[in-house]
Amino acid sequence: MADSKPKAAITPTRAEDFPEWYQQVVSAADLAENSEVRGCMVIKPWGYGIWENIQQQLDSMLKATGHKNAYFPLFIPLSYFEKEAAHVEGFAKECAVVTHHRLEVGPDGKMRPAPSAELTEPLVVRPTSETIIGSAFAKWVQSYRDLPILINQWANVVRWELRPRLFLRTTEFLWQEGHTAHETKQEAIEEAVQMLEVYATFARNHLALPVYHGEKTESERFPGAVQTLCVEAMVQDRKAIQAGTSHFLGQNFAKASDIKYVSRNGMEEYVWTTSWGVSTRLIGTLIMTHADDDGMILPPRIAPAHVVILPITPKEETKQAVLQAAATLRDKIAAQRYAEEAIRVEVDQREIAGGSKNWEWIKRGVPIRIEIGPRDLSAGTVALSRRDQPVKEKTFKPSAEIVEQLPAILGEIQKNLYHRAKILRDDSTVRIDSKKDFYDFFTPKNKEKPEIHGGFALAHWSGSAAVEAQIKEQLKVTIRCIPFDQEVRDDQPGQCVVSGEPSLRRVLFAKSY
Amino acid sequence: MADSKPKAAITPTRAEDFPEWYQQVVSAADLAENSEVRGCMVIKPWGYGIWENIQQQLDSMLKATGHKNAYFPLFIPLSYFEKEAAHVEGFAKECAVVTHHRLEVGPDGKMRPAPSAELTEPLVVRPTSETIIGSAFAKWVQSYRDLPILINQWANVVRWELRPRLFLRTTEFLWQEGHTAHETKQEAIEEAVQMLEVYATFARNHLALPVYHGEKTESERFPGAVQTLCVEAMVQDRKAIQAGTSHFLGQNFAKASDIKYVSRNGMEEYVWTTSWGVSTRLIGTLIMTHADDDGMILPPRIAPAHVVILPITPKEETKQAVLQAAATLRDKIAAQRYAEEAIRVEVDQREIAGGSKNWEWIKRGVPIRIEIGPRDLSAGTVALSRRDQPVKEKTFKPSAEIVEQLPAILGEIQKNLYHRAKILRDDSTVRIDSKKDFYDFFTPKNKEKPEIHGGFALAHWSGSAAVEAQIKEQLKVTIRCIPFDQEVRDDQPGQCVVSGEPSLRRVLFAKSY
Repeated sequence: MADSKPKAAITPTRAEDFPEWYQQVVSAADLAENSEVRGCMVIKPWGYGIWENIQQQLDSMLKATGHKNAYFPLFIPLSYFEKEAAHVEGFAKECAVVTHHRLEVGPDGKMRPAPSAELTEPLVVRPTSETIIGSAFAKWVQSYRDLPILINQWANVVRWELRPRLFLRTTEFLWQEGHTAHETKQEAIEEAVQMLEVYATFARNHLALPVYHGEKTESERFPGAVQTLCVEAMVQDRKAIQAGTSHFLGQNFAKASDIKYVSRNGMEEYVWTTSWGVSTRLIGTLIMTHADDDGMILPPRIAPAHVVILPITPKEETKQAVLQAAATLRDKIAAQRYAEEAIRVEVDQREIAGGSKNWEWIKRGVPIRIEIGPRDLSAGTVALSRRDQPVKEKTFKPSAEIVEQLPAILGEIQKNLYHRAKILRDDSTVRIDSKKDFYDFFTPKNKEKPEIHGGFALAHWSGSAAVEAQIKEQLKVTIRCIPFDQEVRDDQPGQCVVSGEPSLRRVLFAKSY
Repeated sequence: MADSKPKAAITPTRAEDFPEWYQQVVSAADLAENSEVRGCMVIKPWGYGIWENIQQQLDSMLKATGHKNAYFPLFIPLSYFEKEAAHVEGFAKECAVVTHHRLEVGPDGKMRPAPSAELTEPLVVRPTSETIIGSAFAKWVQSYRDLPILINQWANVVRWELRPRLFLRTTEFLWQEGHTAHETKQEAIEEAVQMLEVYATFARNHLALPVYHGEKTESERFPGAVQTLCVEAMVQDRKAIQAGTSHFLGQNFAKASDIKYVSRNGMEEYVWTTSWGVSTRLIGTLIMTHADDDGMILPPRIAPAHVVILPITPKEETKQAVLQAAATLRDKIAAQRYAEEAIRVEVDQREIAGGSKNWEWIKRGVPIRIEIGPRDLSAGTVALSRRDQPVKEKTFKPSAEIVEQLPAILGEIQKNLYHRAKILRDDSTVRIDSKKDFYDFFTPKNKEKPEIHGGFALAHWSGSAAVEAQIKEQLKVTIRCIPFDQEVRDDQPGQCVVSGEPSLRRVLFAKSY
């Protein structure tokens, strides 16, 4: 008996092999590829288009909260980097180090770093910029009148990765890093919380990612931070992935970089700093959350194109009329607005077979496809397909009506993607109160598919680092956060799900990327 | 007798010491500063705001000509880099080289690159990306149907600099680099010329830089290029500075990276490539072209703020009313448009003395300052000052009238800056026909001010590299380009101004940055 299920565009499917499905979607959707520099990716135009939208939209939220962009050096002198002990320890194992500033032809006739051009002090390629930005802040701040300093930087960073994976873990990645300095502890904590809220709003409203937000435990903190706050998403294999992080750094980096100011009382004091960031990892999160067995599905707000028009030109004699109609339609659509921007629309008139052209756009995840052919010209209708609906589904409608309805349809798709992801997450977030249930929840039923397990567990934890180490070792499970969200937060006392020790509240446990 | 000339805000003035004046303007305008990493600068918010406007405006011109953005690795394996012989030779002396991927604590207790983490193959931090992008193109192109590939990248690059100077020559700088691959030689040449025209238009219309454009001589070509085209500006010490460059690379990089395609005839052929770029050096060019002895003067199109409102609040009892009026005025101004964007307006209500606040904005070069004080409230007028006019000049006008006139005033300032620069350049561009005149023109009259000389010389040159070497050695003069511009182009034969050899046309000689 033949399998009656239609074949999916991506092989393997999510159910067959989730990790391999992910790689195939990245490739089929033309988002990125590995370069021959181990761990470094090439972000292709369709993938970079997503990043450009993320940048532009998040940037305006950062500016609306009073931050200004600036740019700091790629290289950090080793001695700077060493100033904060926890920080250097946290990053030492993944630092790319520049040791020479010239190449020369060696005795074997091949190029080599010139021994005479060895640097007195090696330079670290920034894995993050607290220390180099801190040294600038130290010059910029004299008195309380110079505070707060609210800075953001869009940049590339490097953290050497031994098991790279496109978007999720790459040696070089792109990100924004906010760095701020404040007069008081309270103000700095409020800043860190505010930026976490910005990330949560951005994830929900722009990326259609339902996220929990909360605070990391001590063992999961950013190296050098006093508090690390985070936004956590659940992807389709029910693992967690961090979708943004915001740190209250106390005075640790202020002391390391000597950022002092004269206070309102005339006293010399250290400032209080924060840092916060999101990266191209978000694109990996988008894929694992929204894509299906036919490829990528893009939330309209960050799709490089909202709509693609596919002219169908089977006969030479009607071709010009169809292309003309497609161009007219494009202009009408481009005059419409969605989410305060002109609708982004393309006509794909490449001379390749219509079927494979259509499938290319399905796999790329463009929210709306519109086909227009010779028969539609007389009828005045076009065929519309939505990527949030089954791929074969088409609606035939007068083109004028479609043009008018597009903003609403895009809004619906955005909402549907969010709700679909939220249902999976809510259904897979479970309160657990016994150790046995906890271990069962995180133990795969099928040994061939170790990625399938329960999801997020809300369970009691006493604060013991030993328990964290134990479940990490035995189950590969970590505490993702102590949640702030009202709907999952639970401040009732109880007993730690693993040790039975008294606990003040539930925390969020999960396997993670 | 006391000097009756008012003291300028910048010390020294341009006439006193042009190079030092430049550094002082960068600092007084709060544009950038040196970091403690030799040659690497910190671009401060006001300077970075200029770069953001350059990016956004140029980016839309690059997209309008069919280019898409993508991102390629920061690191280039040494073996890639070596593939094009002229290329590696051109860049070898200025390459930062990564040799290790981990730090560890050494025997002296200090951090060092871990000897066990030495890379098998060193990585070059990209000084430019032809080779790494070429290797991606080789994968992307199979047939003529995949061509042209039209890619742009916004990125940081590193070229080790022994005599760094903020914006003009920095070890790390920001730029865009376009990279394209084409089916035919003709198409690639047309692309290189098209992008040069884009740069010339952008320089003239957005940066208010009058530029000549043309082709470089062989000795001034980009390493690996067949033809290098360039845009050349003249700054106020009459030296030339390159404001954009576009290269026809022939098949050199296609052969080095093995970028082949199956042609329309079914033959395997190498593609033809181009590359082109502008960098943060443009900000240095802007400063040296437009700034004066009171600091920066920003062309409105790329100013981070078009207008700053300075509330004058001498008395506590009228303070709230003044601040309220300032906020109302700001909202009205922000609703106006200039050059297809909302007018960028800020209210500076920091509690510092009004005089030094005003001077801060003069030095930063904001195009328009508007003062509003208690007396203006009843009169309904405000005081407007334009940075293209003497700093003490003020116009008092009803605020409603000013709001309405702002777009036109900004347009006038933009035009005035261009014309002012063009007059200097045209007056200092001279046709020269004798060797003596040529040497006189480029020999400073005052030995203490070696930077003051004639300017641009349009003179005959036979094509001899020996002549180029001689004048470079003796006068520090180079051929900036063989101009394309109708107004200076001269295709009449003549004799080389230095050697007397027969020459086909005049070329543009100058000292340069």
